[in-house]
Amino acid sequence: MAAAATTWFPTSPASLNSKGPACPTQNRAANFTIRCNAQKPATLSFTKTEHEPHAIYSSVKTFAPATVANLGPGFDFLGCAVDGIGDTVSLKVDPDVHPGQICISDISGQSPNIHKLSKNPLWNCAGIAAIEAMKMLGIQSVGLSLSLEKGLPLGSGLGSSAASAAAAAVAVNEIFGKRLGYDELVHACLKSEEKVSGYHADNVAPSLMGGFVLISNYEPLELVRLKFPSEKELYFVLVTPEFEAPTKKMRAALPLEIGMSHHVWNCSQAGALVAGVLQGDLLMLGKALSSDKIVEPTRAPLIPGMDAVKKAAIEAGAFGCTISGAGPTAVAVTDDEQKGHLIGQQMVQAFQKEGNLNASANVKQLDRLGARLISGVRSN
Amino acid sequence: MAAAATTWFPTSPASLNSKGPACPTQNRAANFTIRCNAQKPATLSFTKTEHEPHAIYSSVKTFAPATVANLGPGFDFLGCAVDGIGDTVSLKVDPDVHPGQICISDISGQSPNIHKLSKNPLWNCAGIAAIEAMKMLGIQSVGLSLSLEKGLPLGSGLGSSAASAAAAAVAVNEIFGKRLGYDELVHACLKSEEKVSGYHADNVAPSLMGGFVLISNYEPLELVRLKFPSEKELYFVLVTPEFEAPTKKMRAALPLEIGMSHHVWNCSQAGALVAGVLQGDLLMLGKALSSDKIVEPTRAPLIPGMDAVKKAAIEAGAFGCTISGAGPTAVAVTDDEQKGHLIGQQMVQAFQKEGNLNASANVKQLDRLGARLISGVRSN
Repeated sequence: MAAAATTWFPTSPASLNSKGPACPTQNRAANFTIRCNAQKPATLSFTKTEHEPHAIYSSVKTFAPATVANLGPGFDFLGCAVDGIGDTVSLKVDPDVHPGQICISDISGQSPNIHKLSKNPLWNCAGIAAIEAMKMLGIQSVGLSLSLEKGLPLGSGLGSSAASAAAAAVAVNEIFGKRLGYDELVHACLKSEEKVSGYHADNVAPSLMGGFVLISNYEPLELVRLKFPSEKELYFVLVTPEFEAPTKKMRAALPLEIGMSHHVWNCSQAGALVAGVLQGDLLMLGKALSSDKIVEPTRAPLIPGMDAVKKAAIEAGAFGCTISGAGPTAVAVTDDEQKGHLIGQQMVQAFQKEGNLNASANVKQLDRLGARLISGVRSN
Repeated sequence: MAAAATTWFPTSPASLNSKGPACPTQNRAANFTIRCNAQKPATLSFTKTEHEPHAIYSSVKTFAPATVANLGPGFDFLGCAVDGIGDTVSLKVDPDVHPGQICISDISGQSPNIHKLSKNPLWNCAGIAAIEAMKMLGIQSVGLSLSLEKGLPLGSGLGSSAASAAAAAVAVNEIFGKRLGYDELVHACLKSEEKVSGYHADNVAPSLMGGFVLISNYEPLELVRLKFPSEKELYFVLVTPEFEAPTKKMRAALPLEIGMSHHVWNCSQAGALVAGVLQGDLLMLGKALSSDKIVEPTRAPLIPGMDAVKKAAIEAGAFGCTISGAGPTAVAVTDDEQKGHLIGQQMVQAFQKEGNLNASANVKQLDRLGARLISGVRSN
């Protein structure tokens, strides 16, 4: 049954923190589900889908990795993906969901503030990105239900919302035969990021594409893959304290104007960072990562102990250390996993000693794949 | 004969524009010659020369290429060398010059304002750099005379002073057996740049080293070679109008403070520029080169017709176009020499039509070698 190409918006949108309605399979009241609109934004040229694509899978499971954005002088335009931690989405064709609509059936995970996530797809990162992907594909005849497994803590600076969005957008794309390219998937996820943290692709692009991604333009979207040499090792030491550093507050701390000498310095470090990545030169990469004179100096004082944590990381042998995203996670880089654990211990101790904060450390490799299909059940 | 390790400074330094004294071979009054001091700056760790090196050559001829600095968003930290145009230095061991001293015997070239150059080695870029190189090597027993052939127009934005300095420093180094590394040569040339245009290595480093060089730090000096792939072609279209754009005036036009959004934009373009160079992606390189929102917009209005020249270059098929150095030369990039000539014609026409300026165009390849020995006569 083909639904009319119109969008249904809820008459009174729930707040970002509300859980929203249950899935139609649990509760048929569909006040908060959305009908996808085949109409595409006028300014974007998406893949033409003259015919609505068929579902290739009846269900899929996808994973999207955590990301480290900013990377010191890479503020707001550079990010990379981190393997082994991320969000997982299970998405299935659901005859109980109205065609062209999506519902969120379940959200699970260990994050203490996971109850803040809404099941209303209009107010959930995964939901928003999935809806956008469905719009782009022109899905009108199939209803989907989505289950989100949060592997990432919320508001930690590891791109949690981006990973949910990326996993969901990729899940929709996989079910319908992978017709969307990265540009379109990034756009779908940007709709979600726009709602929660601003129109920035420095988390969603690397979560989708893997590795390091530089965003050089938004209109039109221009994504530059920065290939870290395949023969080189790169480990991230991610140390997350029990502390909330809301993106909004961290953005409010930024200076509005920057002096020319600091501007030139940061630009040169951004260039050196890119060179460090492309040449696989961890010494250069780490130095540049550590060298931000603009953003980190305003944010670090808002995270208790951060300066000491950075110092501890460098003293323990890290090539560099900075704040991941808007924080509070601190990220250090090294070329050796074992050394990474030792660096992590020193950073955890510094958070405890200087910031009076409990913290946990993870040592993770660069993710070179990005959001991906984990499993799928083919349609008959 | 070993001279005492002291420096003789002139009692009343000539102005930068004065020609200074003739060479001792012409005039033995040595008021303005300098005795090199073996003592090295305390903050720098130069090659140790326990024994004063012998002259390997009795005379050498060196060439140092022109450079394009700034490159749009690469302002003050990125530059590259351009083959086929540059300055030439002839340097010889001269028994008529007091040991440990240097003199400038001749300056030649076609530049209309060449008379502005001083023959006083203390006030001439080549002289200052040569003196510094002699100091670093601890030369006390040999006197040198230097002849400078200016292939570059003065004040054009093509790194004329840097090329003179680089050719001279390399000439001294070659004569005494190449004991100084690039770091030291850059430091020697920086002494000269400091006097004429500020403490910036974005011209001297690529003139010495060839290719693209990023300066990521000054204390300590950190130079990042950005290798443009050897299999790729890169041509610079250099269009120089008959117009003076003094570096001082062009610097005074710069904003003191920069808004955050422009800062982020330029940083991302600096990153993309570096990626474009390292990946040999001329489309990316050209786009980034053209994208500066901070420096070029304040300087271009001071060069009559520059906006139209840039537009003409892009319309004629250039990958990008910006101001070379502090101007007034405009530089466009392309991958084809023939196309470069056509682009150059359009740019010259635009300077004539919109700026009412006569201009000349050169199409040059990336110089991958940097300052080099052209010929040398071995010592007996």
